[in-house]
Amino acid sequence: MIKAAILGFGTVGSGVYNVLKSNNRLVNERAGQEIEVKYVLDLRDFPGDPVESVLTHDFEDIINDPEVKIVVEVMGGINPAFDFTKRCLEEGKNVCTSNKELVAEHGLELMSIARENDVNYFFEASCGGGIPIIRALNDCLTADDIDRITGILNGTTNFILTEMTEKPGVSFGKVLKQAQANGYAERDPSADVDAFDPARKIAILASIVFGSSVDYKDVYTEGIRQITAEDIRYSTTLGYAIKLLAEASRTEDGIRVYVAPFLVDPSHPLYPINGVMNAVYVHGNMLGDAVFTGAGAGSLPTASAVVADVIDAARHDGKRAYCGWKHDEKLAITSIDGVRRKYLVRISTEDEAKANKVFSPDGFLDTISVGELEDEIAFITPELSESEFEAKAKEFGKVISRIRFY
Amino acid sequence: MIKAAILGFGTVGSGVYNVLKSNNRLVNERAGQEIEVKYVLDLRDFPGDPVESVLTHDFEDIINDPEVKIVVEVMGGINPAFDFTKRCLEEGKNVCTSNKELVAEHGLELMSIARENDVNYFFEASCGGGIPIIRALNDCLTADDIDRITGILNGTTNFILTEMTEKPGVSFGKVLKQAQANGYAERDPSADVDAFDPARKIAILASIVFGSSVDYKDVYTEGIRQITAEDIRYSTTLGYAIKLLAEASRTEDGIRVYVAPFLVDPSHPLYPINGVMNAVYVHGNMLGDAVFTGAGAGSLPTASAVVADVIDAARHDGKRAYCGWKHDEKLAITSIDGVRRKYLVRISTEDEAKANKVFSPDGFLDTISVGELEDEIAFITPELSESEFEAKAKEFGKVISRIRFY
Repeated sequence: MIKAAILGFGTVGSGVYNVLKSNNRLVNERAGQEIEVKYVLDLRDFPGDPVESVLTHDFEDIINDPEVKIVVEVMGGINPAFDFTKRCLEEGKNVCTSNKELVAEHGLELMSIARENDVNYFFEASCGGGIPIIRALNDCLTADDIDRITGILNGTTNFILTEMTEKPGVSFGKVLKQAQANGYAERDPSADVDAFDPARKIAILASIVFGSSVDYKDVYTEGIRQITAEDIRYSTTLGYAIKLLAEASRTEDGIRVYVAPFLVDPSHPLYPINGVMNAVYVHGNMLGDAVFTGAGAGSLPTASAVVADVIDAARHDGKRAYCGWKHDEKLAITSIDGVRRKYLVRISTEDEAKANKVFSPDGFLDTISVGELEDEIAFITPELSESEFEAKAKEFGKVISRIRFY
Repeated sequence: MIKAAILGFGTVGSGVYNVLKSNNRLVNERAGQEIEVKYVLDLRDFPGDPVESVLTHDFEDIINDPEVKIVVEVMGGINPAFDFTKRCLEEGKNVCTSNKELVAEHGLELMSIARENDVNYFFEASCGGGIPIIRALNDCLTADDIDRITGILNGTTNFILTEMTEKPGVSFGKVLKQAQANGYAERDPSADVDAFDPARKIAILASIVFGSSVDYKDVYTEGIRQITAEDIRYSTTLGYAIKLLAEASRTEDGIRVYVAPFLVDPSHPLYPINGVMNAVYVHGNMLGDAVFTGAGAGSLPTASAVVADVIDAARHDGKRAYCGWKHDEKLAITSIDGVRRKYLVRISTEDEAKANKVFSPDGFLDTISVGELEDEIAFITPELSESEFEAKAKEFGKVISRIRFY
């Protein structure tokens, strides 16, 4: 028997409580011992809810109870989650969390405290919701040197881009409002649409894959706010899809980590990932390519990942589990300036001659026209580095929009 | 330091040896200790190959060496692999294997011997090649009650079906010859094209998911030998793809396990899995849907999965790892007779009236014509159970071919 506490009875916390109740027999069998929720911490009361019998408003009840060996932190945000997590780890309690803000912001410190106190800090649910990508990296793809990981790590933006593709002509703003109305997007959508959320997630995954902390503030981050119905029309005409990709890779120039919308071709494994689904595409030096797909958010899928952590914490009671993120140092990230790609560039029809002069090595660019868009054309550049493209775009001066080809 | 032996230096065995050499530093770090290959068993000599220094022709060298704690059985076939595996487990050595024939045929007995001797019998590479599906089930999706698992588990047949789809009009026989020529299919292709191979794999996966042994001989098994270029033309006309699916599910009527070609619609996650790729689609009661995709065969991807087992064996040195396949009994399988599905049925144009009479509840069936096929048509039946369909097909008497809709 091992006793657990849940910090926060919100969407994920109540999901964790429900998974532990509903799948009780299975969970205990797989954990190798009975897991009992002794406390649920929340400031609110839940009159009539079965959780009442274990509800507490006081974190001190939990931290001072030596019986509690596993603490589930699903409060979200930095404070007081950071302080609570730190104190639990220092007290010799394992912590399982879905809190990607906290892991991305203070993971380095918390991992180090966990190591010093011989306990585990697990955060499977912080990346990719129910997709078991962190455990896949730490415990499954262990024979491989992983050199690239590419993900659709944010369900809200993937839903918006999918809607814009399936309903041609619909604007970003309109789809965002719809996503907010049906609960797929927050009232303040910035973490999603400005891609701070997937930037945090790819920083966490990169820290596991490459061994040292990747600071999410070092991740080149471009969201989807600027993607228009017109951009989508071009991508559809080309047979491509626009996807917000988060990627970390080891290249000859160093480790690169970035998030940006890309034009993805139909043969790519991330092309068919639509709606709120997430997917992670991993390349290993022996395995080759592997793709993990699943629900990136939602109360029960996220809770499923948290409870898998709880089970692993019970299996490792008194022992440290392996985690690839093992060095107490920050990883230096190489800028994206040198990355060479093709770009789709939209311009006014009248600027075609100038575009040929600036962007084409031989003075001639194939152009793409979309029936509905009369006064403009688009073209595909030759392969250019980010900085070469920026210089040319500046010289040209009148780019309507540009999207990278993956 | 933990010492290992490899039984068999063929395609997979040499891959395992190479992965352990090439990724040596990473492998040791993740195993928590150095892994040293002390013996490689093969009847052949490999003059000049670095393996010579550890090569032995005598299994007794390995079984009698108490230092050897991990044995990699990658010989394939039942004999002498079964005898060797049994003796290793009885001697307190962990065994890691890619041998699906052996696991499917004697898994129940070998799992039980492993339990009695407090060692582990790992077989990640027996299903889905490099896809870490077994570890995903045992160690990652642990919070979930898995009620369905559906896979494309055979790369050869998926390659053949993909080729037939991409090159309309090409026959099964011609593509098979091509697959044999480029090494994707065996000289005797029966295990693949008659679906015995995926039947074994789904039996193994079902044993893990449902806890007791599923006998592969109980699995309803239909291969792809009878699929013609004409069948492919209809599937393409409908916008569907024909895939050889292996499925195990818990239904109201009991556990069902079968392998057969199905018409898969474009929105299904297994639709885009082409060529030699494998994929496994899992449904959990909390997680919802998750899909794992990767290389289903090949020396290095398979070796990557075997080495992940070796690492897990080193991590669990002296301890049993959790495995869902835990009961010493055979699971009763429910027949597929009661499963209700739609069918695509091809008939001669002249038999349309009779087909309407036999297959349609209201005497009228929508028919599908394909330009190139002049004397025949096809229609989609209403939902029928397998036995209802069989009865109607018998009454009708002149079905050219029938394929189930998934």
